[in-house]
Amino acid sequence: MSGSTQPSQQVDWILRGGTVLTMNPARTIHAPGSVAIQGDSIVAVGPVAEIDAAYTAAETLDCCDHVVMPGLINTHTHAPMALLRGLADDLRLDVWLHGYILPVEREFVNPEFCFLGTLLSCAEMLRGGVTTFVDMYYHEEEVAWAAVQAGMRGICGETIVKLPTPDAVAFEQGLTYLSDLIAHWAGHELIMAVPAPHSIYMTTPEILRETTAIALQHGVPQLIHVAETAGEVEEWMTSTTRRPVRWLEEQGILESDVVAAHCVHISREEALLLAETGTGVAHNPTSNLKLASGVAPVWSMIEAGVHVGVGTDGCASNNDLDMFEEMRLAALLAKGVGGSPVALPSEDAVAMATIEGARAVFLDHLIGSLEPGKRADLIVLDMSQTHSLPHFETTGLNIYSRIVYASHRSDVRDVFVNGKQLVRGRALQSVDEGAILDQTRDLAQRINAFFVAREESVLDKLVDIGGLEQQETFEVQAKGFAPEGFDPDKALAIPEITITGHSSRDQYDTYLFFGDGLGERLRYREDNVLEPDGEIHPIYTLTLTGPAKEAEFENSVVLSRARYTAPADRSLRFYREYFAPSAIREVSKHRERYHIRFKGVDLAVNVDRITSPPQPKLYIEVKSRTWSQQDAFRKAGLIGELLHLLGSQPEDMLGQEYVDLVAAD
Amino acid sequence: MSGSTQPSQQVDWILRGGTVLTMNPARTIHAPGSVAIQGDSIVAVGPVAEIDAAYTAAETLDCCDHVVMPGLINTHTHAPMALLRGLADDLRLDVWLHGYILPVEREFVNPEFCFLGTLLSCAEMLRGGVTTFVDMYYHEEEVAWAAVQAGMRGICGETIVKLPTPDAVAFEQGLTYLSDLIAHWAGHELIMAVPAPHSIYMTTPEILRETTAIALQHGVPQLIHVAETAGEVEEWMTSTTRRPVRWLEEQGILESDVVAAHCVHISREEALLLAETGTGVAHNPTSNLKLASGVAPVWSMIEAGVHVGVGTDGCASNNDLDMFEEMRLAALLAKGVGGSPVALPSEDAVAMATIEGARAVFLDHLIGSLEPGKRADLIVLDMSQTHSLPHFETTGLNIYSRIVYASHRSDVRDVFVNGKQLVRGRALQSVDEGAILDQTRDLAQRINAFFVAREESVLDKLVDIGGLEQQETFEVQAKGFAPEGFDPDKALAIPEITITGHSSRDQYDTYLFFGDGLGERLRYREDNVLEPDGEIHPIYTLTLTGPAKEAEFENSVVLSRARYTAPADRSLRFYREYFAPSAIREVSKHRERYHIRFKGVDLAVNVDRITSPPQPKLYIEVKSRTWSQQDAFRKAGLIGELLHLLGSQPEDMLGQEYVDLVAAD
Repeated sequence: MSGSTQPSQQVDWILRGGTVLTMNPARTIHAPGSVAIQGDSIVAVGPVAEIDAAYTAAETLDCCDHVVMPGLINTHTHAPMALLRGLADDLRLDVWLHGYILPVEREFVNPEFCFLGTLLSCAEMLRGGVTTFVDMYYHEEEVAWAAVQAGMRGICGETIVKLPTPDAVAFEQGLTYLSDLIAHWAGHELIMAVPAPHSIYMTTPEILRETTAIALQHGVPQLIHVAETAGEVEEWMTSTTRRPVRWLEEQGILESDVVAAHCVHISREEALLLAETGTGVAHNPTSNLKLASGVAPVWSMIEAGVHVGVGTDGCASNNDLDMFEEMRLAALLAKGVGGSPVALPSEDAVAMATIEGARAVFLDHLIGSLEPGKRADLIVLDMSQTHSLPHFETTGLNIYSRIVYASHRSDVRDVFVNGKQLVRGRALQSVDEGAILDQTRDLAQRINAFFVAREESVLDKLVDIGGLEQQETFEVQAKGFAPEGFDPDKALAIPEITITGHSSRDQYDTYLFFGDGLGERLRYREDNVLEPDGEIHPIYTLTLTGPAKEAEFENSVVLSRARYTAPADRSLRFYREYFAPSAIREVSKHRERYHIRFKGVDLAVNVDRITSPPQPKLYIEVKSRTWSQQDAFRKAGLIGELLHLLGSQPEDMLGQEYVDLVAAD
Repeated sequence: MSGSTQPSQQVDWILRGGTVLTMNPARTIHAPGSVAIQGDSIVAVGPVAEIDAAYTAAETLDCCDHVVMPGLINTHTHAPMALLRGLADDLRLDVWLHGYILPVEREFVNPEFCFLGTLLSCAEMLRGGVTTFVDMYYHEEEVAWAAVQAGMRGICGETIVKLPTPDAVAFEQGLTYLSDLIAHWAGHELIMAVPAPHSIYMTTPEILRETTAIALQHGVPQLIHVAETAGEVEEWMTSTTRRPVRWLEEQGILESDVVAAHCVHISREEALLLAETGTGVAHNPTSNLKLASGVAPVWSMIEAGVHVGVGTDGCASNNDLDMFEEMRLAALLAKGVGGSPVALPSEDAVAMATIEGARAVFLDHLIGSLEPGKRADLIVLDMSQTHSLPHFETTGLNIYSRIVYASHRSDVRDVFVNGKQLVRGRALQSVDEGAILDQTRDLAQRINAFFVAREESVLDKLVDIGGLEQQETFEVQAKGFAPEGFDPDKALAIPEITITGHSSRDQYDTYLFFGDGLGERLRYREDNVLEPDGEIHPIYTLTLTGPAKEAEFENSVVLSRARYTAPADRSLRFYREYFAPSAIREVSKHRERYHIRFKGVDLAVNVDRITSPPQPKLYIEVKSRTWSQQDAFRKAGLIGELLHLLGSQPEDMLGQEYVDLVAAD
């Protein structure tokens, strides 16, 4: 190819002498090989002698005993959430979300949070060989700036939902922010800003049509969560008779380039539809296991021709950004759950993290393989560690299995993005890690303090006396005055309602208040269930509730949280003395409780007469346990409908607890 | 506790100022705390001030920003197999076993191999925070010596099977070796030698009775693989009507202390039986996924009261010895496959790798927790890395989730076993890692050369001409002279046999030999299927077979391997010229082929008349595809039985292929 008379071309870098995994269409491996880099791009890849003969480099990196391969592509994450790593784990989804993640997001997520969190994520990802990440969060302007500071390539997806978010009080504002963001970053060498409508259930058809129009107009892909949990798919099918991917296709959303994250509960027909529409999939094996969502049938999607990449998801549900772990888990789960030891071989797992990931996020013209003309995004992996030796050459594929089954992020020695060396000999070049970690520690202390203030004293004291198991419950509830002359037996006897149970009770509640009375309160309840034969079966319970409402919906429907509830096995006197409350208030009532089914949902309807302090009007209260924000939202709507059916007027609705209502009198 | 007048006690080490996870019954955490070590034991664990006041140390290790916790216990591995890491992966089990693992074990496993492999494993395990390993392989005397050299604690289980092994031509010899081994290591501070009967299907009731007697006599546990695959359980139930754990209990085996590895396919009743008998379980999540065995229901076993530890299994099926990965995977799989996000919380996962692991292997009186009087086996874990920050204190359990979901083996800074510091600031003290890696590379080269010699030339050339998919098949087969006057239609018409198919064929085989003719051979076959109406449908195939036999059983039953088989779409002339064989031989025959079912197994019976070169006698050949060594063994027995039924005498049996038989004439 080149003789001694050929002048050799000057380039910036030669990565020399490693096992070069090109991940090109022929899956060429040069062992040993070299890669020549000029500016932001790869100019040549080939055997050592060939590159030596043709190029002279300003800097040469010895890659002997190392693998040189494309940088890893994290196809789904929420970078700022690195700051919430380990906030709370191993909890029920509703407790985790409503008890920890949402309160912290409400309180702390702002532009500074998103900038710092993204820098922390970039530092971790670069160290672990990730050169491109695909993000979905709020304040993506800050995410983009942090990525640029770290030198990483990023697809920055601004999240759009139908509810208020940390950076938009309404979705229209979110869409404006999004359009500005995309325009601002258009043509940037590292950043592409894109729409990220959260999911079908957290958006509306209108929002999805808007984001699709924006994506098509700007020629960018859009990101969305699809079929992550079985419950979400089931509910969608109940309400639309369509599986999610089919629904998205019918709505025209898949006419844009779409990256669908998760796809855990996907039918064979949907896999074919994803392939047919060129929709990319981001597989998140760790997160899907940790949140008990299940295992995505990626082996079947790949077979159907879908481009599947790998992602870490956010640090709140992973809890790290380790793409080696995700590659390995993708390969292992396909075998162990798919049932065949040849499913998703290691070569395919490496492809998912590189070229197939690039295809899944529509960047394969730029990245994903080591080929002349592509951007110089690549990593150098140490293969001489104790845990990765020996090396065999028995199948022609051994190098892939060494990477997938035995290599770790700690083996990443050097990382290049866009021709710049960002990690050099395991040291990060572009980010002041020490400063970021200091700021991270400071923020964690503030978040801790927020929780301590939220959780302290009453809770601790409850735990100290024992006998209580932590049992958090969330209820969606609404109450209001009953219409004049309301008769529950008649009002509930309509075809839309099925009564599944009924009881009469006298309830004597004693509330213990603390401090200014606005925070936590402890309720001691004597619940006398009145049997038809006149017998009384008292039940004593102790319940700790947080500040009155976790969230508020239309029609004064509120989401309330009971943090602890347990049988009360001591006297009221004991609790009074032990907790030494700042105030005590009593409320007694007679309650007719109906358990009903309405539009397929179980609800409790209480018809209450407050006997002490005596109140003139009858109250109707409708309640339902809830398990997720999505579920709460849906049930809030149902409760509004039901109250309307029962004759309650919006102006009769009361967003407070009885103890607060009667105190206000 | 101690005033200024109390003289402070002199100790060897104080590990000072870390977050000390004791894993004691109360799960006490000292944050910050210290651990005092004297000789081989822990003398005190407590808050920093308390230890400072009471002890003065020869050496103090600053553990600020680190976790100090019990060393990890790898409850199931095959240490020498580290030398086979990445030999071949992502293959069908039979191809993997018969094509790679068994040939290498036959050729290379000797005392030196086991010593070197164990040293390599110990180096990796120590770096990754493992202080105790429970081993099951051959030449365990060498495994023990290597562990002692590395300074690790080891339970060394000498494998006993009913077949010849690399260190015993018959199991009686294995049992003698075992008794000597146990006696030799009795009372050693680090090593306990124990019996390791491989499994119920690879041993016999007699062997299991013997190993149980030995275990009881010496007061040591024994190790066994239990219910690793669904197939193995199914076959056992077919032949004994008992599930494996029930069978073991009925045989009295569980009267000894037993460590059961895998337990993937375990019923609820068996889980209760394991708990009741105090049997320990070694859970191997990575290996069970990688070999497509499934996911062990450990959450259900733990609930039943079974002590479950975690293990890596051997490096041929993992491919590393990373207990952090196993902890994490155990916690994740319980959630994602068990279906609940609260299943197997991180505290339980840490317990499995420490105190519960110690209980599972009957060493909890010595190790598994940081308590005064226990051996000083502990690790110091760096918690200040980018991937493991921030740290919250919201649930009281955050430290466990940081370890399980975000920490890695590369975070292990120091390791102590029996009071000796074996890893100091990430540097291995007890093993000359460089020398071991050099020896490992040398051995890998020799193994590679063995495979190259085995696989080269004909195979490459086959691949070059394309059109061939790698399809390996293993067949158990036996042939022999048919009895005088043999009539297949009559002979097969007996109640034990169901004929499921029959065809008549004329087969013209051309064999291409290479080199000395003893290695691979390529067969070109024209297979003329004769239809009843006289039509002929020729099928042309090309098959590459290895050296004649992979294994030999009783009655000249052999296991043969066809490495490639594919339609032959070119002329015989082409193949002759292309492959330029050293010799060519032809064999023609008329074949009556019967497909039969015998004792529930599908077999092919061929009644062959060799027409060229003409042979005087009729041959009977019985064949069956096989999928595992165990399966091969069982089918070999069945084929022997069938041939006996058909009247073939042992002296009539022929262990060769027709082309070799007729050449010998």
